[in-house]
Amino acid sequence: MQRLTRFDAEALDDSDPLTRWRSEFDLDGPGPIYLDGNSLGRPPAAVRRALSEGAEAWASELVGGWSHWIDLPLTVGDRLGRLLGAGPGQVAVCDSTTVNLYKLAYAAVASLPGRTSIVGDAADFPTDRYVLEGIASTFGRELRLVEGDLAEGLDARVLAKAVDASTALVCLSHVNYRSAARLDLPAVTEIAHRHGALTLWDLCHSGGALPIGLDEAGADLAVGCTYKYLNSGPGAPGYLYVNRALQGKLLQPVWGWFGQRDQFAMAPGYDPADGIRAYLAGSPPILGLMAVDAAVGVTEAAGVDKLWTKSQALTALLVRLVEERLRPLGARLASPASPDRRGAHVSVAHADAWRWCRALIDRRLVIPDFRVPDVIRLGPAPLYTTFAECFDAIERMEAVLTGGLSDDPPGAMPRVP
Amino acid sequence: MQRLTRFDAEALDDSDPLTRWRSEFDLDGPGPIYLDGNSLGRPPAAVRRALSEGAEAWASELVGGWSHWIDLPLTVGDRLGRLLGAGPGQVAVCDSTTVNLYKLAYAAVASLPGRTSIVGDAADFPTDRYVLEGIASTFGRELRLVEGDLAEGLDARVLAKAVDASTALVCLSHVNYRSAARLDLPAVTEIAHRHGALTLWDLCHSGGALPIGLDEAGADLAVGCTYKYLNSGPGAPGYLYVNRALQGKLLQPVWGWFGQRDQFAMAPGYDPADGIRAYLAGSPPILGLMAVDAAVGVTEAAGVDKLWTKSQALTALLVRLVEERLRPLGARLASPASPDRRGAHVSVAHADAWRWCRALIDRRLVIPDFRVPDVIRLGPAPLYTTFAECFDAIERMEAVLTGGLSDDPPGAMPRVP
Repeated sequence: MQRLTRFDAEALDDSDPLTRWRSEFDLDGPGPIYLDGNSLGRPPAAVRRALSEGAEAWASELVGGWSHWIDLPLTVGDRLGRLLGAGPGQVAVCDSTTVNLYKLAYAAVASLPGRTSIVGDAADFPTDRYVLEGIASTFGRELRLVEGDLAEGLDARVLAKAVDASTALVCLSHVNYRSAARLDLPAVTEIAHRHGALTLWDLCHSGGALPIGLDEAGADLAVGCTYKYLNSGPGAPGYLYVNRALQGKLLQPVWGWFGQRDQFAMAPGYDPADGIRAYLAGSPPILGLMAVDAAVGVTEAAGVDKLWTKSQALTALLVRLVEERLRPLGARLASPASPDRRGAHVSVAHADAWRWCRALIDRRLVIPDFRVPDVIRLGPAPLYTTFAECFDAIERMEAVLTGGLSDDPPGAMPRVP
Repeated sequence: MQRLTRFDAEALDDSDPLTRWRSEFDLDGPGPIYLDGNSLGRPPAAVRRALSEGAEAWASELVGGWSHWIDLPLTVGDRLGRLLGAGPGQVAVCDSTTVNLYKLAYAAVASLPGRTSIVGDAADFPTDRYVLEGIASTFGRELRLVEGDLAEGLDARVLAKAVDASTALVCLSHVNYRSAARLDLPAVTEIAHRHGALTLWDLCHSGGALPIGLDEAGADLAVGCTYKYLNSGPGAPGYLYVNRALQGKLLQPVWGWFGQRDQFAMAPGYDPADGIRAYLAGSPPILGLMAVDAAVGVTEAAGVDKLWTKSQALTALLVRLVEERLRPLGARLASPASPDRRGAHVSVAHADAWRWCRALIDRRLVIPDFRVPDVIRLGPAPLYTTFAECFDAIERMEAVLTGGLSDDPPGAMPRVP
C-alpha cells in the first residue's frame, strides 16, 4: 500500500458533503490547525448570535423573559435528546456534568438499597471516578473499578465479570476521554440489566459526535457536556437523561425549587414534579441554555449520521497517517486499532508526549491536547475540520519529532479540561 | 407631616452621588418603571462588553483560554468576597445557589454526626426549605422550621428557642425574599455558636445590596446568587463562602475533578484540594464567570456602602409613599416597619395583589413582581433606580387601584424566579 499523500486528503475533502458547514465557524487565515474540538468546540456563528441576542433579550425583556426562559432546560433538552436517540421528556439541560452525575448516581444507588456494589472503569475520566467514590462512601458500597487496556478500553467480558446480583449501578463513559475507546452501549446495558443493575452513561465524548440510540438500547440514565462536539462554549451547561420508565421512581438528592411540582406556589414540603423536571435543582443558566439551543441546531441541521460518517473517515485517515509517519519515529496509536471500537478522536502515545505537544502549540503548528501520562489527543471535528488539515497536522507533528524536541524543561502541566 | 411630592423625590435625586451609574445601564426612552432589580438586575454595559469579549476569547483563544479561565471561580470569588466582607480564599463562584446550599448544608450536617436537628425559617425561600428537608431526610435529622410574622420576619428570641445542643446547622436567609425582613447576622451567628451549631446564610437578597461582614461576624458558611443586585444575568452562577477555619474540616459530597488537589494528574482516588477549591465540583461556566467578574466590578466601583445608603433612602421613600397613598386604598406594608430590620426591597400586600400586579405590567406602567399569597415586591436598585421613579411608580399603582381592577380572570400564576 502506498503512503497517503496530501492529494488523497484533498480528494476526500472534495467529496465531503459537509464542507459548507465550515463557513459557520470563524476560520480566517493561517494559524495552527485546531484538533481539540473534542475538548472545546469552536463557536458556530449561530451560537455567537444566540449569545448576543440573549444579552439583548435580558436588556429588553428583563424579568418578563423568565415566562419563556423558564422552560428552556426541558425544551432544549428535548431538542438535544433527538441527537441522542431519546424521545421527548427524558433529557434536561442543567448544571455541570459532575453535578448531574452525582444527582443520578445517588438516585440510582438509593433506589436499590439491597445492592452493595457499584461498577465503573478504572481508566474513566477523573470526575466520574471521584463522584462514584463519593457515592460509594456515602452509601457504604463497594466500588469496583474494572481495569482494561489503556488504548483498547474495557473488555466487555472482563466488565461482565464485575457485574453481579449485588450491583446497583454500572456507570461508564460511552467513549473514553483518553483513548477514545468506545463501549458497545446496548451490549453493556444488557449485561447490567441481566443482573438487575441500572446503567449510567457519560456521553461527554459521544454526544453530538455519533448516533447513540439511548431509548433503543434501553439505557437507564445518562449525562454529558455540551462544550465538546456540541460547540456550546467553555463550561456550557451539562445535560442528563432519565429513561421515562424510571422517572418518578428515582429520587435525586438536591431538592431544589426547579424540581418542585408547583414551583411558584412556594408551598411547604418538597413534592417532586412529574417527569424529567424532577431532576432539575436551581435556577438555570439562561444565556448558556440559549447557546446550547443554537449549537444543537447546527449539529441537528448537519445531521449526526453524516457527521459520524465523516468523523470515522477523518479518524481512519489519522490512524493510517500515524502508522505511516509517526510510528517510525517512536510514537504509537493509543486508541483502539479497530474502527468499530473507536469514538471520534485518535490518541497517539510517545515517551516525550508533553514536550512534543508543547512544541506543536508553542510553534503555532497544531493545537491538540495532552493527557497524562504520555498521550496526545487529536480530535477532528467533522463540522469544521478538513481531511487536508488532518494530513497537514500529522506532517507537522512528524517534522517536529524529526527536528528534535527541545531539552528545555517542558513547563508546568497543562490545565485544559 | 405633609404628603411627599414629586419635587421631594427630585430633590433626593439631585443630591444623589450615584446618579452617574445610571448611564452604565441601557435606559433609553419611556416605558414601564423597572422595580424588579431584586429579582433580575438590569445588564450593566460592562457586563454586556464582558459577554461579547468572552465569546471573542472563546473564538480566538480556543482551548488555550482554559489556562487562565480555570482560575476564574476563585479569582472572581475573591473579588466578590470583598463585597461580602470575606477575606481572600473563602469565596468561590460556581454552580447554582441551590446546588451550593446542598453542598454546604450536607457538609455541615455530616461534620456534626452527633447532632440531630437542623434549624430553618418556615417562611424562607422554597429552595432553601426543600434543600434542608432533603438533607434532614438523608441524615435522619429533625428539621425545625421556625414560624415568624410574614412581614416582620423571624423574632431572634423565638429563633433562639429553636436552637439547642442538638442543633447541627442554622440555615437562614439574611434578607427574606418576600418581606425583605433582615436578620441580625452577627447576633444570630452568635446564638448558633453558643450552642455549638454551624451557620449557613443565604445571601441572595443581600449580596451586593448591603455590607455583610461575613468574616467579622464569624459566619461559617454562606451561599448566594449573582443575578439580583449583582446584575450578572438570568441564571448567572451562584457563589459559596466557607470560613477559612472550616476549610479542610467540612467535606462536601459532590466529589468532582475541580475539587481535586492535583486536578490534571487524573490520578486514582479523590483527594480534596486545600482551601476553598475543595468546594468546587465540575467544569465552571466561563462566560457566566466573566459576566459576574464585570458585574462585581461595577458594584465595587460604586461602593456597597454608598449603594446601601441610597437603598435605604429609596425604600424609606417607598414605605412613606405606601403609607400615604396606598394604605387608604386597602394596601398595607408587608415589610418590617423599622428600617433597621429591612433589606433592599419593600413589599406591599393587597387582597387583589396578583390582579393589581398584572395590570401594572400589562399596561406598561411599572414592573414589580408578585409573590404568593398577596404581595407585590418593589425592588429599587440603587445603581439605576431614581427617587422620582419610585414616586411615579407609587402614583401609577395608586391610579390603577383608584381606577379599579378588571374583573377579568387574572390569568396564570407568574413564573418569575
